[in-house]
Amino acid sequence: MRPSGRDAHVMRNISFTPDFTCHAEGSVLVACGNTQVLCNVSVENSVPPFLKGQGQGWITAEYGMLPRSTHTRMRREVTAGKASGRTQEIQRLIGRSLRASVDLTALGERTLMIDCDVLQADGGTRTAAINGAYVALVMALTRLQVRGELTTNPIRHAIGAISVGVVQGEAVVDLDYAEDSQADTDMNLVMTASGECIEVQGTAEQQPFNLQQLNAMLTLGQQAIAQIATAQQTAINQWRQQAGL
Amino acid sequence: MRPSGRDAHVMRNISFTPDFTCHAEGSVLVACGNTQVLCNVSVENSVPPFLKGQGQGWITAEYGMLPRSTHTRMRREVTAGKASGRTQEIQRLIGRSLRASVDLTALGERTLMIDCDVLQADGGTRTAAINGAYVALVMALTRLQVRGELTTNPIRHAIGAISVGVVQGEAVVDLDYAEDSQADTDMNLVMTASGECIEVQGTAEQQPFNLQQLNAMLTLGQQAIAQIATAQQTAINQWRQQAGL
Amino acid sequence: MRPSGRDAHVMRNISFTPDFTCHAEGSVLVACGNTQVLCNVSVENSVPPFLKGQGQGWITAEYGMLPRSTHTRMRREVTAGKASGRTQEIQRLIGRSLRASVDLTALGERTLMIDCDVLQADGGTRTAAINGAYVALVMALTRLQVRGELTTNPIRHAIGAISVGVVQGEAVVDLDYAEDSQADTDMNLVMTASGECIEVQGTAEQQPFNLQQLNAMLTLGQQAIAQIATAQQTAINQWRQQAGL
Amino acid sequence: MRPSGRDAHVMRNISFTPDFTCHAEGSVLVACGNTQVLCNVSVENSVPPFLKGQGQGWITAEYGMLPRSTHTRMRREVTAGKASGRTQEIQRLIGRSLRASVDLTALGERTLMIDCDVLQADGGTRTAAINGAYVALVMALTRLQVRGELTTNPIRHAIGAISVGVVQGEAVVDLDYAEDSQADTDMNLVMTASGECIEVQGTAEQQPFNLQQLNAMLTLGQQAIAQIATAQQTAINQWRQQAGL
Amino acid sequence: MRPSGRDAHVMRNISFTPDFTCHAEGSVLVACGNTQVLCNVSVENSVPPFLKGQGQGWITAEYGMLPRSTHTRMRREVTAGKASGRTQEIQRLIGRSLRASVDLTALGERTLMIDCDVLQADGGTRTAAINGAYVALVMALTRLQVRGELTTNPIRHAIGAISVGVVQGEAVVDLDYAEDSQADTDMNLVMTASGECIEVQGTAEQQPFNLQQLNAMLTLGQQAIAQIATAQQTAINQWRQQAGL
Amino acid sequence: MRPSGRDAHVMRNISFTPDFTCHAEGSVLVACGNTQVLCNVSVENSVPPFLKGQGQGWITAEYGMLPRSTHTRMRREVTAGKASGRTQEIQRLIGRSLRASVDLTALGERTLMIDCDVLQADGGTRTAAINGAYVALVMALTRLQVRGELTTNPIRHAIGAISVGVVQGEAVVDLDYAEDSQADTDMNLVMTASGECIEVQGTAEQQPFNLQQLNAMLTLGQQAIAQIATAQQTAINQWRQQAGL
Repeated sequence: MRPSGRDAHVMRNISFTPDFTCHAEGSVLVACGNTQVLCNVSVENSVPPFLKGQGQGWITAEYGMLPRSTHTRMRREVTAGKASGRTQEIQRLIGRSLRASVDLTALGERTLMIDCDVLQADGGTRTAAINGAYVALVMALTRLQVRGELTTNPIRHAIGAISVGVVQGEAVVDLDYAEDSQADTDMNLVMTASGECIEVQGTAEQQPFNLQQLNAMLTLGQQAIAQIATAQQTAINQWRQQAGL
Repeated sequence: MRPSGRDAHVMRNISFTPDFTCHAEGSVLVACGNTQVLCNVSVENSVPPFLKGQGQGWITAEYGMLPRSTHTRMRREVTAGKASGRTQEIQRLIGRSLRASVDLTALGERTLMIDCDVLQADGGTRTAAINGAYVALVMALTRLQVRGELTTNPIRHAIGAISVGVVQGEAVVDLDYAEDSQADTDMNLVMTASGECIEVQGTAEQQPFNLQQLNAMLTLGQQAIAQIATAQQTAINQWRQQAGL
Repeated sequence: MRPSGRDAHVMRNISFTPDFTCHAEGSVLVACGNTQVLCNVSVENSVPPFLKGQGQGWITAEYGMLPRSTHTRMRREVTAGKASGRTQEIQRLIGRSLRASVDLTALGERTLMIDCDVLQADGGTRTAAINGAYVALVMALTRLQVRGELTTNPIRHAIGAISVGVVQGEAVVDLDYAEDSQADTDMNLVMTASGECIEVQGTAEQQPFNLQQLNAMLTLGQQAIAQIATAQQTAINQWRQQAGL
Repeated sequence: MRPSGRDAHVMRNISFTPDFTCHAEGSVLVACGNTQVLCNVSVENSVPPFLKGQGQGWITAEYGMLPRSTHTRMRREVTAGKASGRTQEIQRLIGRSLRASVDLTALGERTLMIDCDVLQADGGTRTAAINGAYVALVMALTRLQVRGELTTNPIRHAIGAISVGVVQGEAVVDLDYAEDSQADTDMNLVMTASGECIEVQGTAEQQPFNLQQLNAMLTLGQQAIAQIATAQQTAINQWRQQAGL
Repeated sequence: MRPSGRDAHVMRNISFTPDFTCHAEGSVLVACGNTQVLCNVSVENSVPPFLKGQGQGWITAEYGMLPRSTHTRMRREVTAGKASGRTQEIQRLIGRSLRASVDLTALGERTLMIDCDVLQADGGTRTAAINGAYVALVMALTRLQVRGELTTNPIRHAIGAISVGVVQGEAVVDLDYAEDSQADTDMNLVMTASGECIEVQGTAEQQPFNLQQLNAMLTLGQQAIAQIATAQQTAINQWRQQAGL
Repeated sequence: MRPSGRDAHVMRNISFTPDFTCHAEGSVLVACGNTQVLCNVSVENSVPPFLKGQGQGWITAEYGMLPRSTHTRMRREVTAGKASGRTQEIQRLIGRSLRASVDLTALGERTLMIDCDVLQADGGTRTAAINGAYVALVMALTRLQVRGELTTNPIRHAIGAISVGVVQGEAVVDLDYAEDSQADTDMNLVMTASGECIEVQGTAEQQPFNLQQLNAMLTLGQQAIAQIATAQQTAINQWRQQAGL
């Protein structure tokens, strides 16, 4: 049995708290079980140098963990003077995933900067961050449309993300920290709501995995992401209603 | 009139949410108006090299702002590769203040690391951090006593902190961001609950201030810190009851 | 047609030059088309702090590109003061992949440090690095066995790596630089010689890809890695003969 | 009795050597007892980016200690790669204090950069630096007026600085290193010659201090700063005479 | 006898492999005994800020060692975050030497960046780098002339470099690693083909050397550099023939 | 004629002020014309890791320039986060030179750290630093002998240093800043008092120099260093007398 008692295909509760902070153009606290990530989207009216004058926008992400978001305290990255390899890998993943969900030419020469800060960690922080970032991004884009700064909706694909793995030979979905540390394979999936792949990142931690196991994980992930997409859309709709947008 | 409509001696609502996160030995979200700071205390069973073998403990603090805690996004300090002068000044202030509240020899060879991370900023983040850190510190010390790791209570003084200032010639208490940016003098006070000084840090931003104005600010600060001390103690008592400690 | 004129399933020529440099315990220059990577394995009789006293070894990797290995000169990373996110992602991938090929407990308290330095780049440098690193690793381990420092062969799996992608809707293998820059999907695969997965890292650059396309890429990759495994083994055998080991 | 044998209100001899070095627009070696600080003012015809085009000037300061200015050698800060928190706190204090003494709009778009380098330390280096910096600043501004680059004198307030403290329950002025290390309270004051406050920075090192003690320290400080202001003005007058300005 | 068995005046075999890599405007692998250095010249159509608008060009160099170019592995400089003092000294030497060989005003506003990367080290890497860099520089300048971007040949002096030393009281030329580590004096010479000095850098490692010994070393160096100049010119001529330039 | 009006063989006045600061074991302010360098020697009872347990000592040096020691202000190196290439080259030169003057095995397991800080610069700062460092080193060693911590005098050679050059075809000695910037060749010499070479570092800035010019410079340098050695010994003798050592 899984440490959490969940069946192989059952993910943890996921919830979205829009407008968790007041300054960002889009702000969401996403909780997936005990994992909590604050996702803030900031809109800047400029683009990085390599895009100047090309009439398109950019989306980029930064990721951080508060020092005591984890079981034992982690050193603050600023103390080391640089982001760790893990942090950079994750923020590159978040940025690529969100860029894939948007038509960058429809953004105009704007940068959307997504800050994902983990307040509490219990496995799956990078996929939770992508799920929350998508909702915060839609909020920010909605506000730009309402203010007339955008005339079309730049979203191309609703996206969601989930971790899957192989534990004791069986494919399972949404591993928490306890399960993650004993998994043979650890895989992060980012997909569209309709089940096409944006990112597939699987690593054999203990044992190589075969193509059959890979496809079992992909199926579990596709199902979970469909559920996540529903929860995201529900949260967006409720926020729109309450905000009168 | 003050931008907030408050009278000169009226501070904003202050509230403490204990156990805001689940891993730290002491965790408090403190809110003072729109300013929100997450204070987490971690206990480590070692001391910095300069204290090895001296039979006493240490308390130190780190302070950070989430990039979009502010009106416009701030660059993450890890990107600059080092903490700014302002950040270092603040974390030195928090550390000194909390050390003054504790008998370090009663701690044993332990370090209490206090992380203060600003989720949302509207003036007074450093004083809010000290107020929350004190509550989180008491929670962590209570747990060490309950577990039998400490036999006495190392707290020497309950402490609180508040900002005061001179705006348009008048001394006022607890400046928010709008008021802070037009103040002639900006002063941060850390005091014991009984009104003795731990830290007095005043700066003439526009005009020098005289000793009469200084004493008016000190009086306002003393009164506010007495109120804060009451609110801290109430939060601690409620947490003890609910936690059955 | 592909820019190189190759059929979808045809990879570039791959060659291994053992003992390209004289000091390393294992040294291989791997060439895959115009991509050339120098892989040097160094043996150190110690392990990182987190493994001290656990009776097992460690394998880690570093990756670099000479400034003019590329079409236009890249800035030296030491000038920026730190390895880029891309570099760190790649060296983490190489390290994980090679660790998966070895029984670390059979290594004893030793670290094998693998340096992969790109002399000339034309796409697929990270997969070429893994292919060369595997051969250099076997050379270093062979020498340790010959000297009597190891009594068993710690290799668990022969491994190889290849890039695959989707270009104009079609799955293709071993993309060179010209093809890589127009691919819809870019995927790096690390597998055992027998076709089980060690790493699967796919990214939708322009268009999401479906599970059918994913499986087409996996099949192409499996076939190519089988060829690579043969070429690796041939190079190892020839080196053993010539070196009389 | 105080370690130095001085009465509580007696400060050490203070002296100013103008034109200690030959290149700076204003150069002063200030000695306060054994503490010696070289203060050099450089004039640059530009302002920092945040002030461009606003028709005003800027004053900023940097502070350093020569490695063997202290009893035991300190590591050079460039070796650590960054200025310490203490250094940054001090240079921010010096900069703020000197800006408070000048009408920045009367400066025009110029930056006065003040370098304060401690050649020999025996307590009170930051207050000595402010005292010397004021004299060097007046020298540099005088030269700008003589050359016709400034038409008015931008000085608004003559300023001076001194440390005060509570030692064994008694307020004392101008602590040297031996006394500083046993003080209960350590406070740095920057005031105008007429006794108004620019900066008040007091810290309870061992015991909290009450408002009565605070006022005793302020009175001692006010008296000392009046003496310092006289010494500064005398040094400036002599230099003007000798230089024929 | 010397460790290598060579007579005092005999240098190791030196060879040049032009076009060792394919992207650089000039690329040479230089081998001097077991020392192998890859020298790549990149042409950029801009100059450093301090030369903007002065109608002249610039030549600068960077030097690196692959981590396992040496007997025991060296840490990668990017890991330390900065180039070592030795590295900086060497790249300043290479840059100065090559600038001395060229009429910078004949270059136009171009920068030639010379990357010298040591693949295998056995003493004399800096002088080998200068020898290879000169050949690669001529190749790059030839190509600029062929393309019509330069109308004249900017070379003023053919240059070469060699190490000399005093070992057991005797002056010797071209020390390998084994000999270098026991030398009393170590000297690097850069000269024109006609025997005039560009750089003379001698250091007494164990014993001071007298002017007679200095002149003996200079004579050996002059002879060796004349041989090197011949080998460089031969390599250039062969490359021109083969490349039809 | 030279800018200073001096004849080719005439050096500037050189003076040594012992005990310029009070904390260092050896402290000297050396002035050579307008160039002023403060040289402080600190004794530490340990050696660097690579010398642990070998029964010998070490001498190392650090060099810095105060920001306004120069005609226009230089940026503080700590701001750049690292010592420049020039600084590192100079401190390596100073360290090597002073090590050559001492029998390191007679030092015992001690490190002498020499800090050379330029208060005022007018050419020749590195050679002035070596001259002052030698005097400060003798002072520190004398004190160690007086205290009985050393039983023998570890000095092997009195050393001195001077710059020489070729200006308008003529060899000259001790170039000031104005002359240095127009020199064809710039050479720094470190020699023993008896005229043997420790360091010879010559660079052709504008024109290559021939061996005849090289020998003319060496002769001028030898003569100047003999004068410097006399001045150093006189300063040491006077200090010994006054200090009663």
